[in-house]
Amino acid sequence: MEKIIDKARILIEALPYINEFKGKIFVIKYGGSAMKDKNLKQQVMKDVALLSSVGIKPVVVHGGGSDISKLLQSVGQESTFVDGIRVTNDDNIDYVEMMLSGKLNKQIVSDINYYQGKAVGISGRDGGMIQAVSLEGEKDGMSRVGKTVKIDASLLYTLLDAGYVPIVSPLGVDENGKSLNINADEVAGEIASELKAEKLIYLTDVDGVLDDGKLISQIDSKGASALIENGVISGGMIPKVSYCIKSNVSNVHILNGTLEHSLLLEIFTQEGIGTKIIK
Amino acid sequence: MEKIIDKARILIEALPYINEFKGKIFVIKYGGSAMKDKNLKQQVMKDVALLSSVGIKPVVVHGGGSDISKLLQSVGQESTFVDGIRVTNDDNIDYVEMMLSGKLNKQIVSDINYYQGKAVGISGRDGGMIQAVSLEGEKDGMSRVGKTVKIDASLLYTLLDAGYVPIVSPLGVDENGKSLNINADEVAGEIASELKAEKLIYLTDVDGVLDDGKLISQIDSKGASALIENGVISGGMIPKVSYCIKSNVSNVHILNGTLEHSLLLEIFTQEGIGTKIIK
Amino acid sequence: MEKIIDKARILIEALPYINEFKGKIFVIKYGGSAMKDKNLKQQVMKDVALLSSVGIKPVVVHGGGSDISKLLQSVGQESTFVDGIRVTNDDNIDYVEMMLSGKLNKQIVSDINYYQGKAVGISGRDGGMIQAVSLEGEKDGMSRVGKTVKIDASLLYTLLDAGYVPIVSPLGVDENGKSLNINADEVAGEIASELKAEKLIYLTDVDGVLDDGKLISQIDSKGASALIENGVISGGMIPKVSYCIKSNVSNVHILNGTLEHSLLLEIFTQEGIGTKIIK
Amino acid sequence: MEKIIDKARILIEALPYINEFKGKIFVIKYGGSAMKDKNLKQQVMKDVALLSSVGIKPVVVHGGGSDISKLLQSVGQESTFVDGIRVTNDDNIDYVEMMLSGKLNKQIVSDINYYQGKAVGISGRDGGMIQAVSLEGEKDGMSRVGKTVKIDASLLYTLLDAGYVPIVSPLGVDENGKSLNINADEVAGEIASELKAEKLIYLTDVDGVLDDGKLISQIDSKGASALIENGVISGGMIPKVSYCIKSNVSNVHILNGTLEHSLLLEIFTQEGIGTKIIK
Amino acid sequence: MEKIIDKARILIEALPYINEFKGKIFVIKYGGSAMKDKNLKQQVMKDVALLSSVGIKPVVVHGGGSDISKLLQSVGQESTFVDGIRVTNDDNIDYVEMMLSGKLNKQIVSDINYYQGKAVGISGRDGGMIQAVSLEGEKDGMSRVGKTVKIDASLLYTLLDAGYVPIVSPLGVDENGKSLNINADEVAGEIASELKAEKLIYLTDVDGVLDDGKLISQIDSKGASALIENGVISGGMIPKVSYCIKSNVSNVHILNGTLEHSLLLEIFTQEGIGTKIIK
Amino acid sequence: MEKIIDKARILIEALPYINEFKGKIFVIKYGGSAMKDKNLKQQVMKDVALLSSVGIKPVVVHGGGSDISKLLQSVGQESTFVDGIRVTNDDNIDYVEMMLSGKLNKQIVSDINYYQGKAVGISGRDGGMIQAVSLEGEKDGMSRVGKTVKIDASLLYTLLDAGYVPIVSPLGVDENGKSLNINADEVAGEIASELKAEKLIYLTDVDGVLDDGKLISQIDSKGASALIENGVISGGMIPKVSYCIKSNVSNVHILNGTLEHSLLLEIFTQEGIGTKIIK
Repeated sequence: MEKIIDKARILIEALPYINEFKGKIFVIKYGGSAMKDKNLKQQVMKDVALLSSVGIKPVVVHGGGSDISKLLQSVGQESTFVDGIRVTNDDNIDYVEMMLSGKLNKQIVSDINYYQGKAVGISGRDGGMIQAVSLEGEKDGMSRVGKTVKIDASLLYTLLDAGYVPIVSPLGVDENGKSLNINADEVAGEIASELKAEKLIYLTDVDGVLDDGKLISQIDSKGASALIENGVISGGMIPKVSYCIKSNVSNVHILNGTLEHSLLLEIFTQEGIGTKIIK
Repeated sequence: MEKIIDKARILIEALPYINEFKGKIFVIKYGGSAMKDKNLKQQVMKDVALLSSVGIKPVVVHGGGSDISKLLQSVGQESTFVDGIRVTNDDNIDYVEMMLSGKLNKQIVSDINYYQGKAVGISGRDGGMIQAVSLEGEKDGMSRVGKTVKIDASLLYTLLDAGYVPIVSPLGVDENGKSLNINADEVAGEIASELKAEKLIYLTDVDGVLDDGKLISQIDSKGASALIENGVISGGMIPKVSYCIKSNVSNVHILNGTLEHSLLLEIFTQEGIGTKIIK
Repeated sequence: MEKIIDKARILIEALPYINEFKGKIFVIKYGGSAMKDKNLKQQVMKDVALLSSVGIKPVVVHGGGSDISKLLQSVGQESTFVDGIRVTNDDNIDYVEMMLSGKLNKQIVSDINYYQGKAVGISGRDGGMIQAVSLEGEKDGMSRVGKTVKIDASLLYTLLDAGYVPIVSPLGVDENGKSLNINADEVAGEIASELKAEKLIYLTDVDGVLDDGKLISQIDSKGASALIENGVISGGMIPKVSYCIKSNVSNVHILNGTLEHSLLLEIFTQEGIGTKIIK
Repeated sequence: MEKIIDKARILIEALPYINEFKGKIFVIKYGGSAMKDKNLKQQVMKDVALLSSVGIKPVVVHGGGSDISKLLQSVGQESTFVDGIRVTNDDNIDYVEMMLSGKLNKQIVSDINYYQGKAVGISGRDGGMIQAVSLEGEKDGMSRVGKTVKIDASLLYTLLDAGYVPIVSPLGVDENGKSLNINADEVAGEIASELKAEKLIYLTDVDGVLDDGKLISQIDSKGASALIENGVISGGMIPKVSYCIKSNVSNVHILNGTLEHSLLLEIFTQEGIGTKIIK
Repeated sequence: MEKIIDKARILIEALPYINEFKGKIFVIKYGGSAMKDKNLKQQVMKDVALLSSVGIKPVVVHGGGSDISKLLQSVGQESTFVDGIRVTNDDNIDYVEMMLSGKLNKQIVSDINYYQGKAVGISGRDGGMIQAVSLEGEKDGMSRVGKTVKIDASLLYTLLDAGYVPIVSPLGVDENGKSLNINADEVAGEIASELKAEKLIYLTDVDGVLDDGKLISQIDSKGASALIENGVISGGMIPKVSYCIKSNVSNVHILNGTLEHSLLLEIFTQEGIGTKIIK
Repeated sequence: MEKIIDKARILIEALPYINEFKGKIFVIKYGGSAMKDKNLKQQVMKDVALLSSVGIKPVVVHGGGSDISKLLQSVGQESTFVDGIRVTNDDNIDYVEMMLSGKLNKQIVSDINYYQGKAVGISGRDGGMIQAVSLEGEKDGMSRVGKTVKIDASLLYTLLDAGYVPIVSPLGVDENGKSLNINADEVAGEIASELKAEKLIYLTDVDGVLDDGKLISQIDSKGASALIENGVISGGMIPKVSYCIKSNVSNVHILNGTLEHSLLLEIFTQEGIGTKIIK
């Protein structure tokens, strides 16, 4: 009996967090290892369904990584990367888009719906949401890699207002209607900024921002800028952290997505489990 | 670490119940011992705040019992009861009403608001909500005891639609504007029926409906009728149970309000802890 | 026949006032002698019901005065006042609140409803409306006397938008959920300022602001300031008058509430019968 | 002072009527002598403005009678009537319509607006409101006299919902877009029926329905049917009375429009001054 | 078959214009020759109906010219003009208004409705829309000619929001409720400015602004100002053009209303057929 | 000049059709040859954009046919069909879905948006829209071919109400969240029935229903039933025609999608160009 009462106590502990975040928008970037393991994937989807059920408004942006490479391999194409960006052009863009918008996006949708969420999968082409330009000029061979020019958030608001969880595949569209492959971290950040999100959460493969091997639980944007300058924060972590520094996003969280229920633990407990960058 | 993940798992377990009951109205009758113990009172108020925070729409109807007797005693009046009903007349109605609508009602309001709920205390006189007639004719000396004639639920809907938790003091008003003291069990039942509530929950001093000392976890209204006929259900339990049998209420629950978090446990766990009467 | 046509002419005279004030908020402080005489009370309630029926939005704030003293006496407590403020502490706050929120408030509600108004009684604790702090520090023994810190008007707007007349009992709540007794003049003024009321009307025991025994019919806030400085306006009249000078209220009226229908006469006739302070 | 308080008492007497009729639709047929006398006209317009200001929704249908004849005379045309209906055809319809929709209609509009109402003048051609057929076939020479086929009330609802008082000129439109002159009593009745009006009020030149010279204050539709059969009610009074008997209108009132403020007196006093036919 | 496919191609050509102008307000001044020829009139009304059916919000302001003169003649009055303005006073204002608001206005309404539009005819007196002052002081004998003081656009918005096409007769009302005859070009311009119209279109008897006999297709407001200064734009063309220069109107168009479908051609083709003045 | 006026006349001809169909839902099944030819595809997308721009609410359901086969071939899989249905199972469902939801669906979206429409691509998995069961039991090897069980149209209404054109990929979801490949004709029909569509339009490779080589322009559902019985209507034409006979759809149209602008011609001309089955 005491054990069952403990359950109630844990629910009650969540009360202040639910009240604080109700009606707020959380943009969640989901990719990497957390997306590969089937069991982990289910935990994440359950977490998203719970956030939505208590009145938080999650928007999920997903990546594709290894699944795209596998598909390309099956049709005899190699995957090449420059500066961590997949070389995407007319030869492979269709496969990239099919995997992202046709397979991974819809799987996430069905998983969340299975846990009683109400998810809808869209890509940046839908409703002309992500207007982008090709990187062709800047980076050779990257004719179908895009950079976000403008987010038209009206479709997102339509879905959020109707209680849906938008699942966004990171494709944009250029002025001729051509699709462009965009870095999912960037898409998540730009959408979060346009929506003035309460939280932008990156589910990564690492525990958070580490300083000399030690996790930094919380840091403000000034402190984060300093860590970027002195090189503690580097590589792909820089753009993630920067969305808190220079955009409309209130908080950025860097979490280890391979840790079970990391999303819930970061949001619904005092300590959190990753790094939180505050404005 | 495993312990903290367990917390997340418990939150996830609540997911199907939250989704099932979101937007539904629960009328909760709160009185007796659960209202006397200060610690217990706080548990109940936290539970109500949590229900509200996850999107359920609770309406609380409270009684007054022993506090009224104490107040009367302090002004030199004795409390007398006939068939379990307090003898209420022009001599004591003001004290009865002051204790119910002026002290107990507002304390419950502030307690729930302290736990971040948004409670508003009203009595059946407000907005002409509970129209009643005096029992004078039927029961001698009961000139200020009332019987519900009609519930005008518009004020309740106004408050619920704006996200408030209505706390109802069990006073009604007759056609001349006079206040009448009404049994709180009856008020809860009549309101639940008028609101077509999903659940009518009685927080009592017993574990539920007992058959030969054994708790009945669930029973349908047909079975409940049989138990009334053969005397297993008797006394004050009869009218409570009857609101499921003869009104617009989907489920009636009889719980032990002196058990910590009994409200949450009944609603958010598979087994429940009291008796559930289903239509 | 001519007499009956005169009735129609009088109705027609009210037309420009109705059109001018339709949809505007009037905060009415009601207390003192006007509240003691049963017949007068009914006239005031009829007036409020009429204002509401022609589309004006009245909010009534009431006091308690002598009724509280009587209740305290009946339980053997004395009433003491310092600077016109009732000494309120843990010993008597419950009685103060019970009389105000439990008896007087609900009687006003039922009276207005009897004249076909739609009144709802609340106190400053409901919906966390009046957030206050104890005067303890400032005034000895005044642990349960409060000073308004912030008005959260959302509950008032919810009720007004739904066509209800809010009747406000002058209790506030501190950050721990404890009730505090607040001067009703102050509560009326603070609510009027927060609601940006068209009129703040004090129903008092005097005819208005008197200069050398002569009633001042109208004065602007500059003139009023001068009269405060030279002592013509003094005592409890100062804070009343000041709500026009330093807040969001357009006009403050000081009326003799013991004069039959003074409310209607001030609002619906050219001359008025009390003092009107204009911005 | 007592005299001024009497004014307030008279306002208070109107309270139950205002509450009873607020939001209800009154269709008022206005014509005959009440429309000719300039002073009387102003009284009627004030009455309509007052009804509107207290929340009643008046719709005014006007006739034209003698003004049309005068205009025709000025262009050298004679007015002829058959069975009380003006012979209207291609020769005179333009003059009929110009006087009704162009002069009388707009004068009523400006008069009501002068008394702070918000009137809008339309004819049955606007928004295709009154669809009619020519009486040509039935009555010789009546090619531009019409009979109502269907009322499309959407324009009326648009204006009423926005707080306007619609003033209706009794012209209809046939399926080819041609205008037809329709009896104003009929237009008022058909509109009242389509709007399910609370009251249909005819401002006539007589005191009401007379039985042997004596005014009948109130009669039900059954009684009215009997009076029609035995000839007490006859001529143009029959169709007026009939709208209560056979349509969606709750009450029909026959008033003497030449009596000052007859409209207000009928609506806001217990006795009334004309004949009220109830369903 | 090819011919029928051409039809579809022409519809498709209209697509970008429909998308550009959907939901925008176009104020169309309609008068002169385009209003006299019955066939032309039907073309204009069809054009207006089409604009409305594809989601554009037209407001039509009409003149009266020769029809008024004819009516005055039939009652033995002469028409005199000073500076192109009809001398209007107490002797003839009724005839002016009857022709404009009673005949021409309602004919336009029925014509548009015949082509499945939803038109409603009003004058500037309705809803107190056009508040004006008499030119009496400025111009002798012009006691009933008016100048616009203020446009109250609420009635127009009410009608536009409900999907109606307002047809406006150019009468205004002074502060005593008297009607005043106002130049229709001015009424169109003032209404367009108050509504912040996308387009203000004058259907005139000439092809547009001519420079040395050659049509100017498009000119900006600076260029237009220059042409006014050097006398190329002169007379009645000056005020029309000026509404683009000094008001809230985005574009003014001067078209030849006697050219079939000039309205559609100007709006739905690349070249247009008249003069377009852009801000 | 005459030629340009002809253009206006053609626009005017569309007026009655626009008025008739404004706000109505048209479900368009798009597939086969019309989808393969790039030029034709653009014509169809322009037509859909035009329908949307004049206020009609199109929903497009597309197929995939030959593109799926090509993709399967590129990964070394063969396409097999039984009774015209693609054998779909765990081996190929991912490729089927990726081509349909990931490539074709998003291309249609971008094409319509390029012509200024506002399209959003979804599959039946989104929002749990198409709930289906596997045909496994009925047809061997068809484990991932589905049959529609229930359409949840809420996502479609959300998008339509916000002015979007939903583009639907014909995938459904079973109770375990697994995707199922469904015949696009069936999806179009079931959605049209659930939405109570005004029109269900099949863009096919044939001219319509042929009787002895001659096109049937229009036929009622009774006549269509007869033709099914006597074999004139057969094969894949039967289910298409049947949606008019047995569902909530008002009209079914069978058109030749390879004919330029067939969609517009069928809807906006008197004769139409295909077969129309009316209820």
